[in-house]
Amino acid sequence: MQDDPVIGLDAVRAAAAGIAGRVVRTPTVPAARLGEVLGCELWLKLESLQFTGSFKDRGACWKLQNLSADEAGRGVIAVSAGNHAQGVAYHAQRLGLPATIVMPRFAPFAKVERTRGFGAEVVLTGDTLDAAAETARAIAAERGLTFVHPYDDPLVIAGQGTIGLELAAELPPVDVMVVPIGGGGLISGIATALKALRPEIEVLGVETQLFPSMRQAIRGEAATSAGATLADGIAVKTPGRLTRAIIERLVADIVLVDEPALETAVHYLAERQKLVAEGAGAAGVAAILAEPERFRGRRVATVLCGGNIDMRLLAGVLERGLVRDGRLARLRIAIVDVPGQLARLTEIIGTSGANIIEVTHQRLFADVPAKRADVDIIVETRDSAHVAEMIDRLAASGFPARLLSPRSTDVNG
Amino acid sequence: MQDDPVIGLDAVRAAAAGIAGRVVRTPTVPAARLGEVLGCELWLKLESLQFTGSFKDRGACWKLQNLSADEAGRGVIAVSAGNHAQGVAYHAQRLGLPATIVMPRFAPFAKVERTRGFGAEVVLTGDTLDAAAETARAIAAERGLTFVHPYDDPLVIAGQGTIGLELAAELPPVDVMVVPIGGGGLISGIATALKALRPEIEVLGVETQLFPSMRQAIRGEAATSAGATLADGIAVKTPGRLTRAIIERLVADIVLVDEPALETAVHYLAERQKLVAEGAGAAGVAAILAEPERFRGRRVATVLCGGNIDMRLLAGVLERGLVRDGRLARLRIAIVDVPGQLARLTEIIGTSGANIIEVTHQRLFADVPAKRADVDIIVETRDSAHVAEMIDRLAASGFPARLLSPRSTDVNG
Repeated sequence: MQDDPVIGLDAVRAAAAGIAGRVVRTPTVPAARLGEVLGCELWLKLESLQFTGSFKDRGACWKLQNLSADEAGRGVIAVSAGNHAQGVAYHAQRLGLPATIVMPRFAPFAKVERTRGFGAEVVLTGDTLDAAAETARAIAAERGLTFVHPYDDPLVIAGQGTIGLELAAELPPVDVMVVPIGGGGLISGIATALKALRPEIEVLGVETQLFPSMRQAIRGEAATSAGATLADGIAVKTPGRLTRAIIERLVADIVLVDEPALETAVHYLAERQKLVAEGAGAAGVAAILAEPERFRGRRVATVLCGGNIDMRLLAGVLERGLVRDGRLARLRIAIVDVPGQLARLTEIIGTSGANIIEVTHQRLFADVPAKRADVDIIVETRDSAHVAEMIDRLAASGFPARLLSPRSTDVNG
Repeated sequence: MQDDPVIGLDAVRAAAAGIAGRVVRTPTVPAARLGEVLGCELWLKLESLQFTGSFKDRGACWKLQNLSADEAGRGVIAVSAGNHAQGVAYHAQRLGLPATIVMPRFAPFAKVERTRGFGAEVVLTGDTLDAAAETARAIAAERGLTFVHPYDDPLVIAGQGTIGLELAAELPPVDVMVVPIGGGGLISGIATALKALRPEIEVLGVETQLFPSMRQAIRGEAATSAGATLADGIAVKTPGRLTRAIIERLVADIVLVDEPALETAVHYLAERQKLVAEGAGAAGVAAILAEPERFRGRRVATVLCGGNIDMRLLAGVLERGLVRDGRLARLRIAIVDVPGQLARLTEIIGTSGANIIEVTHQRLFADVPAKRADVDIIVETRDSAHVAEMIDRLAASGFPARLLSPRSTDVNG
C-alpha cells in the first residue's frame, strides 16, 4: 500500500485550486502567550474563522463541486450532529443543490436551526448518530440522493488537505504538527500535503480518552469508544478505512487527552489567546497539556479546527476555569446564627483582599446544630494561595471554613 | 495646522521598521458570518492576538525603543487600569528597562497580576484614574522616570499607526474603516497611514455614549463623560491634544454606541465569529449595530483592538445574550402546592420542546397565597416565539406563567 496512496499531493493541489475563493483562507498565527504557559513555541491555524465555524467547509465544498450534473440535480444527503451538517448545508445552498441533513434527536437547538438556516431539509431522528446514519442511508436509497461521507471519501480528504498546503506555505520552521482525529479526514488530508512538502515535520494525532477509536484500530486493541465528551466533534466510534491507511503511513503517533485537559484547553484559548474553540478545536492544545514533556521547548503547530461551542457551555467552562485556577472559590463557613456575625465574617474576607460575589445561607439541610448556620460564600481571589490564606485567617478569627468543590455544570452532559 | 501634521506617513513607516518582529503582525480576516447579521461586508484586524491582548504593544514598543540611554537607564512610568499597563510593562521587560505602573485601586485582580508578571513595580493607588495619574506624575518627578503617555505622544501614535500600514497592504477595497476612540492614539495613527495610502476610505471613530469626550471636544459641546461602561478600555475623559488635531483633519465622524450595543457586539463576536473581544475591542461592531443604515451594503473594516475581558464578565455577557435572543428564559409559574403539580408542569414544558435547566421554589417571599407556591424555571428555548408559545400552552393547562427579566449580572459594575 505504501506505493498506492489513497490521495497524493496533486489531489490536494487540485482541491486547493477548486475551492479558492469559496472558503476562507484562514490565518496561521503565533500564539506566544499560550505557548508560554504550555512550555513550547506555538502556532495556530484558525479554521474556526471559516464561514460555518469549522474546517468542514473545505471538504464539503470540494466534494459538492465534483458531483456529476445528474448527482447534483438529485441532491445530497449527510448525517451529522454538528459541523459536517453545516458545511454540507452551506455549500449545497451556495451551489444551488438540494440538501437533506439527518441529525440525531439530541443535536443542539442552535446547530439544527443553523443547518435549517442554510436551506437544508433537516430530518431529526434516532437517539444515536448510528441510528441517524441508518435512516440517512434509507432515505438516500429511496430518493436517489448522493451520500456525502464526513471523512472516508478521497475528495473530502483532499479538501481538508488544503489546510496542509497553506500550513506548508505559512508556517515558520516547526518540529511537530498536532491534529485532532475524529474519523481522520482532517489529519489524513493535512499529513498528505504537509509530509510531501515538509517531510521533516512530525505529524501527531489527538483523540479523546473516551473515543480512542483510530488509535485502537491501528494498534489492534479492543474498541471502547463511548461516553459524553466536551470534544463531541471528534467523538467518532468508527474510524475511516481510507483515512486509517493514510494515518498508518504518515502519522507518528496518536496522543490521548482526558476531559479536564480539554476543558482547560478551551479555557486557556479564550483567556490567553482570545479565541473561541469548541472541545475538538482545542484538542491540539489539550494534547500539549496532557503530555507536556513531549512538546517542551519544541516548535509546535496545531489546527484550531472548530469554534462551534454552545455559548452556555462556554460560559460554564470559563467559570469552572476560574475555580480551577483559584480565582473563584466557594467557601462553606459555620457561624452562630445571631445578628452581627455576617458583618464580622465579611469584614475579614474583605480585608484579606478578596471580593465577595454571592452569599447564601443554608439552614434547612445544613449539617450543623440548630443554633448555628452554614453560610456559603463565593469569592473572587487572586489564586489558590490567596484562598488558603483567607481560610487560615477565617479559622484564626473563629470561623472554621472549608473549600467546597466547584459548582457542578453540564460540561459533560 | 493643515500643513503641519503632528506625524506623517514617514513617521509611521519608521515605527513599522522599528517594531517589526517585536510585535505580532496580526491577521486581517473576512468576517462574513458576522457581516451577514450586520448587513454589510465585514473585515476585522485582530489586534487581540498581540502578546498582551491589545494594540497597545505597538505604541509602547516603539516609544520605549526611542528612549535615550539616560532615560532608559532611569526607567519608565505609566498609569493605566488595563491594556496600556500591560503593553508598557511587557516591552520594558523585553528591553530590560525598569518599569513602574500606577494602577487605580479598582483595577481588576487579573490585570494587576499580569502587569506584575511582566516584572513591573505596580503601585495601587487612588479611587479614580485621575487620582492615580496624579500620584504617577509625583513619582515620576521624584525618581526622574520617563512618563509614557497612553496616547498623546507622537511616537505612541506612530506605533499604533503601523496597524494602518498593514491594513493598507492587507485589506481588499473597503468603503469605511471604523476605529474605537479612547484618547485617540489608535485612530489618529491608523488614519495617518491609511488616508495617505488609501485616501478613498472613509475613517469613522467610535465612542461610547457614556464617554463621548473626543466628539464633544471637537463639536464644542459640554463634557459629560462619566459612568461604568463595558468598554472600559475607551472610557477616557480627557481626549488627547495631538490626537484631536489629527482626528479633526482625517476622521469623517464619530459614532456613539450604547451599552446594549456593546454587549451584543461582544456576544456576536464570540458566537458568530469565534473571537473573544473586550468591550472596547467590540466597539467597531457595536457602531454597525447602533447605526445599521450608515453601513448597510457597504464594505466595512474595523479593528478588534483588544481581547482583555474578564472571563467571569464574558461568561455573564454570553448568558445574557442567550436571554436576549430568547434562547434562555426564566419563567415564574404559580402552582398549587400539592404533590404532582411539578411533574405535570415539567411535562408540559418538555413536550413543548424546551429543555429545563434549573428549578427553584419560592415560598417565603412569593407574592401568592399560602397554599400556592411560585416556581421559577429556567428553560433553554429556540427563540422568543418558542417562549411565547410555551407560555400560552402553560396558561391553557392552568399554569399561569410570566417571563421574568434576565438574571442581573455585573456587566456594568
